[in-house]
Amino acid sequence: MISVVIVGTGNVAQNLFYALDKTSNVEVKQIVGRNENHFSFTKGKVPTTTDYTKIDNADIYILAITDDSIGIVAQKIKHIKGIIVHTSGATSITALSGHKQPGIFYPLQTFTKGKIISFAEIPICIEAKTSVDLKLLRELGNTLSNTVIAIDSDQRKKIHVAAVFVNNFTNYMYTIGKEICEENNLDFKLLHPLIKETAAKLEDLTPIEAQTGPAKRNDQKTLHNHLNLIKNNHQRELYTLLSNAIKEKHGKEL
Amino acid sequence: MISVVIVGTGNVAQNLFYALDKTSNVEVKQIVGRNENHFSFTKGKVPTTTDYTKIDNADIYILAITDDSIGIVAQKIKHIKGIIVHTSGATSITALSGHKQPGIFYPLQTFTKGKIISFAEIPICIEAKTSVDLKLLRELGNTLSNTVIAIDSDQRKKIHVAAVFVNNFTNYMYTIGKEICEENNLDFKLLHPLIKETAAKLEDLTPIEAQTGPAKRNDQKTLHNHLNLIKNNHQRELYTLLSNAIKEKHGKEL
Repeated sequence: MISVVIVGTGNVAQNLFYALDKTSNVEVKQIVGRNENHFSFTKGKVPTTTDYTKIDNADIYILAITDDSIGIVAQKIKHIKGIIVHTSGATSITALSGHKQPGIFYPLQTFTKGKIISFAEIPICIEAKTSVDLKLLRELGNTLSNTVIAIDSDQRKKIHVAAVFVNNFTNYMYTIGKEICEENNLDFKLLHPLIKETAAKLEDLTPIEAQTGPAKRNDQKTLHNHLNLIKNNHQRELYTLLSNAIKEKHGKEL
Repeated sequence: MISVVIVGTGNVAQNLFYALDKTSNVEVKQIVGRNENHFSFTKGKVPTTTDYTKIDNADIYILAITDDSIGIVAQKIKHIKGIIVHTSGATSITALSGHKQPGIFYPLQTFTKGKIISFAEIPICIEAKTSVDLKLLRELGNTLSNTVIAIDSDQRKKIHVAAVFVNNFTNYMYTIGKEICEENNLDFKLLHPLIKETAAKLEDLTPIEAQTGPAKRNDQKTLHNHLNLIKNNHQRELYTLLSNAIKEKHGKEL
């Protein structure tokens, strides 16, 4: 049995709690947060506290809090004994300096308020200072996910950049798609199946293989027509930049 | 029973054939193509021809061919009687001028070579010159899909632009994500669950609501760190442009 204390009450903390609460070989001993009113998601299943001096003993302390708070909270709970990890993709393990057993437990996923998702398919990136600590983090990860991978802070930061492209920037493409639909009285839902299939294609094809469209085909006529249709300057700028990038990537003359 | 002739042997033609062949109230009478060797997908189930003068009579002729060929092929088969449609998002109905019953039958989806997908969830955008023709196209669409929508050529071209953003450009974001993974010896598959969830979120949230990440939070520290990590100039340019766009969209100071 691995004992765990979760520090945090946000989306990641809540999802971790629900997932760990279901496993038979992990005991969530306590949830720690700043605000008494944010504990309702625990439904009274575990003790909670807002007092950092009253943190329970545990094998692993998980700081599921904002990047900026990690260093501050880590300093406040210097007295705890055990492995202390954070769940951030962008934050170095050095944010936990001052602790003997720092580590990382980074679930590579986007968490949405009020949406509980299954951890089984979520890769968990772990890091620790000793092989003993790494082993325990791997054990914890394996209770949740089929994919637990040990990577160092440099690699984690790089995969976090890649995640920004495939998640944050992709979502921005959806934002523009919705804008264009709304400007033309079209229901954005018409694009949902296309969006899903674009993601699903990666099961079978690399993104280079999956690329389609006028830029890939160097179809000047359609590219030109599209630019004539787009009235918004920002959309035009993006359309041109990304089309040129795709043309270049696929070896077409500009 | 609606009788159909399909002109074309590519991904869209093949997918249409497989889907229509399964319905009980549509008869695919013939497949027409330029190359005898490209008919193998029919498995001998329907007659085929490479001779445009030998096209069979049908209620609807579907030109599932490249945008550039639509006008040329339409001219070659001016003798046919019935509704003639093309399946292109970017091409006007006027490409079929010279025919009395031109129309559009545009499945809003990305089709991949060798991959057969279900039409049930694919929106089919239809257009015709008369309500009688539109009714028959709607009937044909309903045999395949739960979503058949009549939109005019202008709207169709606009939704095609939106499709380029959510499909072509999104896939390009995946391409960059994979590049960053490969440069750092990370398996791109680690990002697949994130990519899927990013698309799946749209079931519950608008893209504006679903936006997360350092740009949305105006997290200057992470934005700065990411730019330091990205060595490729093109990736840096994209990162800056898209982050600034997200910051602006979400009302943060630049």
